Amino acid sequence: MLTRIDHIGIACHDLDATVEFYRSTYGFEVFHAEVNEEQGVREAMLKINDTSDGGASYLQLLEPTRPDSTVAKWLDKNGEGVHHIAFGTADVDQEATDIRSKGVRVLYEEPRGGSMGSRITFLHPKDCHGVLTELVTSAPVESPEH
Amino acid sequence: MLTRIDHIGIACHDLDATVEFYRSTYGFEVFHAEVNEEQGVREAMLKINDTSDGGASYLQLLEPTRPDSTVAKWLDKNGEGVHHIAFGTADVDQEATDIRSKGVRVLYEEPRGGSMGSRITFLHPKDCHGVLTELVTSAPVESPEH
Repeated sequence: MLTRIDHIGIACHDLDATVEFYRSTYGFEVFHAEVNEEQGVREAMLKINDTSDGGASYLQLLEPTRPDSTVAKWLDKNGEGVHHIAFGTADVDQEATDIRSKGVRVLYEEPRGGSMGSRITFLHPKDCHGVLTELVTSAPVESPEH
Repeated sequence: MLTRIDHIGIACHDLDATVEFYRSTYGFEVFHAEVNEEQGVREAMLKINDTSDGGASYLQLLEPTRPDSTVAKWLDKNGEGVHHIAFGTADVDQEATDIRSKGVRVLYEEPRGGSMGSRITFLHPKDCHGVLTELVTSAPVESPEH
């Protein structure tokens, strides 16, 4: 079961400038920052609210670290904006299996590493009415904060 | 203060088919449906989770009702996908005033009517790193359900 909007992924050219925009305009602060070499992104997670499943909803700001990353190519085509949406689940493996069985293309054979030690996969946007959709299971280590 | 991700607005060509995709793929159900003549959309709200500020997060699926609506024009240009994101606040008027004073263009002079009796305004995407951003204050009548 998908139990929350985990995050909205937003692609940007300049992470620091975009973080500053969200801070100065809305007061949102960086909760966590990291580089994901596999995804080819520098990212900042801005926590917006806690959710009823014991998780939280974030904005995930993404700047490409190399020109051949998927986010860099997406930016070249689309410019800055919403890159993907992500739903939280307790079991990304089971969800990926269930959704694949319905004929929706799951982009990874097995879930990979996402923000803050999570495990993630993506669904093909052409099978999701144009929306690049991520499924994410948070790392167990996140639990004590809730 | 903006206290939650209120919804993700997703533009689609066929509302019924898109609702069915979200139901059959993820089990999400329609929480509310309406036509907003001012915005020129038919819409369905799918509630995903409750939020720590006493509100909730939704997907808002949007089908244009006329070819000159902003969502119709957006679909012509972009195809189906994420159209906007919305943050919830207790006071959309004050937020709009504060944000306008920071030099971000607010698209409406005064907030207008949104989903489920809410009051909404939009920020210019060019001032928000490419993200069409909505601010929303829910109708007071929503409170008893929480």
